[in-house]
Amino acid sequence: MTDYSPPARDVTFILKDLLRLDERSDPANYDMVDEDLIETIAHEAGRFCTRVVAPLNRVSDQQGCTRHDDGSVTTPDGFREAYQAWCEAGWGTLAQPEEFGGQGMPHALFTVIEEYLNSSCAGFMMYPGIMSGAVATVMSSATEELKQQYLPKMVAGEWLATMALTEGHAGTDLGLMKTAAVKQKDGSYAISGEKIFISGGDHDLTDNIVHLVLARVPDAPVGSRGISLFLVPKILPDSGEKNGVSVGSIEHKMGLHGSATCVLNFDEAKGWLLGEENAGLGAMFIMMNAARLAVGVQGLAHAEHSYQKAAAYASDRKQGRGMGARPDPSQAADPLLVHPDVRRMLMDARAFIEGFRALVMWTAVQIDVSHGSEDAETRKRADALVSFLTPVIKAFGSDRGFETAVNMQQVFGGHGYVTEWGMEQIVRDARIAMIYEGANGVQALDLAGRKTAKDGGAVAQAFFQMIAGECEAADGSLAFIADPLGKAIHHGEAAAKAIVEQAASDPNDMAGGAYAFMQLVGTLAVGWMWLRLSKVAKEKRDAGEGDAAFLEAKLATARFYAEQQLPLCTALRHRVKAGAGAMMALDTEQLLAR
Amino acid sequence: MTDYSPPARDVTFILKDLLRLDERSDPANYDMVDEDLIETIAHEAGRFCTRVVAPLNRVSDQQGCTRHDDGSVTTPDGFREAYQAWCEAGWGTLAQPEEFGGQGMPHALFTVIEEYLNSSCAGFMMYPGIMSGAVATVMSSATEELKQQYLPKMVAGEWLATMALTEGHAGTDLGLMKTAAVKQKDGSYAISGEKIFISGGDHDLTDNIVHLVLARVPDAPVGSRGISLFLVPKILPDSGEKNGVSVGSIEHKMGLHGSATCVLNFDEAKGWLLGEENAGLGAMFIMMNAARLAVGVQGLAHAEHSYQKAAAYASDRKQGRGMGARPDPSQAADPLLVHPDVRRMLMDARAFIEGFRALVMWTAVQIDVSHGSEDAETRKRADALVSFLTPVIKAFGSDRGFETAVNMQQVFGGHGYVTEWGMEQIVRDARIAMIYEGANGVQALDLAGRKTAKDGGAVAQAFFQMIAGECEAADGSLAFIADPLGKAIHHGEAAAKAIVEQAASDPNDMAGGAYAFMQLVGTLAVGWMWLRLSKVAKEKRDAGEGDAAFLEAKLATARFYAEQQLPLCTALRHRVKAGAGAMMALDTEQLLAR
Repeated sequence: MTDYSPPARDVTFILKDLLRLDERSDPANYDMVDEDLIETIAHEAGRFCTRVVAPLNRVSDQQGCTRHDDGSVTTPDGFREAYQAWCEAGWGTLAQPEEFGGQGMPHALFTVIEEYLNSSCAGFMMYPGIMSGAVATVMSSATEELKQQYLPKMVAGEWLATMALTEGHAGTDLGLMKTAAVKQKDGSYAISGEKIFISGGDHDLTDNIVHLVLARVPDAPVGSRGISLFLVPKILPDSGEKNGVSVGSIEHKMGLHGSATCVLNFDEAKGWLLGEENAGLGAMFIMMNAARLAVGVQGLAHAEHSYQKAAAYASDRKQGRGMGARPDPSQAADPLLVHPDVRRMLMDARAFIEGFRALVMWTAVQIDVSHGSEDAETRKRADALVSFLTPVIKAFGSDRGFETAVNMQQVFGGHGYVTEWGMEQIVRDARIAMIYEGANGVQALDLAGRKTAKDGGAVAQAFFQMIAGECEAADGSLAFIADPLGKAIHHGEAAAKAIVEQAASDPNDMAGGAYAFMQLVGTLAVGWMWLRLSKVAKEKRDAGEGDAAFLEAKLATARFYAEQQLPLCTALRHRVKAGAGAMMALDTEQLLAR
Repeated sequence: MTDYSPPARDVTFILKDLLRLDERSDPANYDMVDEDLIETIAHEAGRFCTRVVAPLNRVSDQQGCTRHDDGSVTTPDGFREAYQAWCEAGWGTLAQPEEFGGQGMPHALFTVIEEYLNSSCAGFMMYPGIMSGAVATVMSSATEELKQQYLPKMVAGEWLATMALTEGHAGTDLGLMKTAAVKQKDGSYAISGEKIFISGGDHDLTDNIVHLVLARVPDAPVGSRGISLFLVPKILPDSGEKNGVSVGSIEHKMGLHGSATCVLNFDEAKGWLLGEENAGLGAMFIMMNAARLAVGVQGLAHAEHSYQKAAAYASDRKQGRGMGARPDPSQAADPLLVHPDVRRMLMDARAFIEGFRALVMWTAVQIDVSHGSEDAETRKRADALVSFLTPVIKAFGSDRGFETAVNMQQVFGGHGYVTEWGMEQIVRDARIAMIYEGANGVQALDLAGRKTAKDGGAVAQAFFQMIAGECEAADGSLAFIADPLGKAIHHGEAAAKAIVEQAASDPNDMAGGAYAFMQLVGTLAVGWMWLRLSKVAKEKRDAGEGDAAFLEAKLATARFYAEQQLPLCTALRHRVKAGAGAMMALDTEQLLAR
């Protein structure tokens, strides 16, 4: 049963009416984008995903991956064929560089496919999902020779890739890693060590896999300043021989069973340096940042998929009676939809999904601008905003994505808890997004520390002032969202100020309030998108353009967001300002004794 | 590996220092309670659970239950022996009526064992966990003959029981049920129909199972006024013959695999009426209310178990460096505990667990008072408070229990997502508590409608005024909790007033704000417990009694709660007052179209 229907109409509304992609000509590659292209991608990518990928979702969970006695790993039934179809259709090349066989389109358009694929089958998405970041990393740091050898295959999807960072004792703290890289006479390196939690570490989708591995050269400085990045293929392309990389085991996980999470053993595997020695973390961060945005999209995708299932169930399942006018008094019970508490959960999902989707796509445009604008100042400003919002999109998106999946499971009552309805799988699959690519607490710290305190709150305050300006400039008919947002933005400003002060006086206070600050920025940023969405919806409605029911739904959802979500900003500001005093008061014995 | 350590010290502090159970003599059975008894139960029940039950938790999840070809169901390895040990030790009889072989102790003491058992292995707890309610239901509504025949076996645990309510099309809306009961010449009834989601519907722990079944007699009024309650044994005690009850299947669920969730087919099964015809729902609610409180305890138990694992992991796992004084500068990394964001999650867990445990136990005392006090007015007042707090304890407890388990999983990073560490099992097991025994949205509606609007907010306002009075009366040294709680309580008062007004003007508005009202009452009630806990901790500390580190931890945790949780009350009040306008604005097509 395919129960997922790609939200092509909403995507088109955001890309065309909100972001006006078809009217942009900076960066240069936006010239290719017209109304037709937007419609085509929104619908055709959807058809591909529902036809080819969504049918895999159940088997992905129930069969999972298998490691065989010879150490090889196979993916669930159907993954291989679907991956072939993915490559043949060329979806993966959409926003890849033309120089190496890509189509060179804006990243913002690829975001559409990223979302659809994640909704259809997140376990499958894990394999191609990594390639934007992997290609960008190799582009930015490999020698011309390596680029020519690897990038055409990677862009075409003929070879997949991994990010091999984590070790058993080195998770968030990459500085602790021990994997060693020793330079050989031919200029390559011999890599030895064990990496864990490597998504797609082995599989049967492609003949070769390009591992991007962090390791230390001899006498490297301790900590994160002594980490280098290497390209280590599973099969050596020149000789066709197997490299010294093997799969120790695959993990049994809460969900995402279709994604092979491997322990990888490197035994003097041949690798090539990317960039400079001891500068690997910076190179890897190109990949990490792409991955972090993709994880936010994953949260969005799980929320959308679970919403669709819950809305369908709530309109179908009859239970209890409505308190107002009853849709069909001849029936013994009304659909769940008549109950305000069920609506509350559904509307909360919509308000997150549609607002956050707009935010993700707005940010994707900024990514394109930061790379491709003709104007250096514009590039710089866009880059600062992307940098500021990346941890928010990753953490807020995955938190709210999981929360939404849990709420949509709740709509099903007991049926949500049994396997058959598929809701519990979405919850289990969605849970990992809050953890991987930097746990959400680490994202919050990145936002508060590196992205806010470090520049004295300059980018944060500029972001808030932009929103405040739009609230002030808003037409009176938008007061229902502009007024509460305009008030809430003061909490953002005050919280950012507090973060800067705390960083100077006691960084623990800053770290203690970081999570609430991330939630506050996320809540405000999505609220801001609701202001913009409302403005566009109202203009179109007043002009008699578009689907009136769709536009009215946007306005009602914005109102719901203003009533239900923006009030949280006061509490979040309080939490930021509270600092870490009570948090840190207990000693280890006090924390452990029960 | 047994990684659970019963929180005997906290339990003792609550029962002895906070609630002073040993000093009470009303109800009469509190006379048996002295310091020794409290200590004995807190520790001995703990030893039983860690020794006998906790070792089952992993196998409960991994092996689950099996339905065999003959329709019989077996529980995971070790359950049968553990259940024998449970019966032999007599823990189940602790608060059961002496008349039928129980020990007649206060319900408040049984709550201790309920929590420990749920932390140790929730799948196992599901079997004996239902018996308090089942015995109370039979006590209140069965004929003397049935009581004599069934209760001694039920109290002793020789026979277990079920609540057979739900049908495929009748979940929350029990009025839709179709199971039929036809009176026979001998006064018994022939019961026919299908029930789903029946916990412990069959198993190998006892030779007989007492099903408490809701069904309709011919010509019963439609809806919930036409439901009768029947006692239907698996084996007919007189003849030893099998009754017409069979297991159609067992459900595959997200978690709680050790608990057999059955589809039960009744095929002219022989049953006996409990109470009057068409008055079954009232009789069943005795059982439901007991079950709802037990579900709150389950949330508490999952939170405690997951906290213990996370605190141990955070003190052991070294990752990253602290920003203040480092515990051991010679190490490359510090324990996770040095990071404020990790502390935030751990302190949030403690603040919920310890405050909510106090609330559960305070309520359990009120249950004892409502049943057993010598003074009718006292009984009535206690009953009103229990009735008001029951949906809060069920819904707030299970919500926060799940949320805490998810946060504690987060402390483990990637290791929290893999099966091996056990955190993901706790999350999966904890999820059902928000759904069963009345989904949390239904609890919220019960609180707002029947428990608040119906009496014009009298009980709610009396509850808030009691708290406000204690805030005002608090010593200045308790201002850190008494002041913010005193302010927050106004939000509770205003929200209750709004609920009453909405119920009169538009019940949909009331229903739309019900969930936030439940969260608000829960947040305030736990805050109130933190005021009382702080008062006792401070008095003991100032008097030089007790363990100073333990008492200081209580005060710091209260401060954390005041800083982090009480600020939410403003937002929750806003949500209550917002009503359902934006919630209900979309029509079905708008909700379904993507």
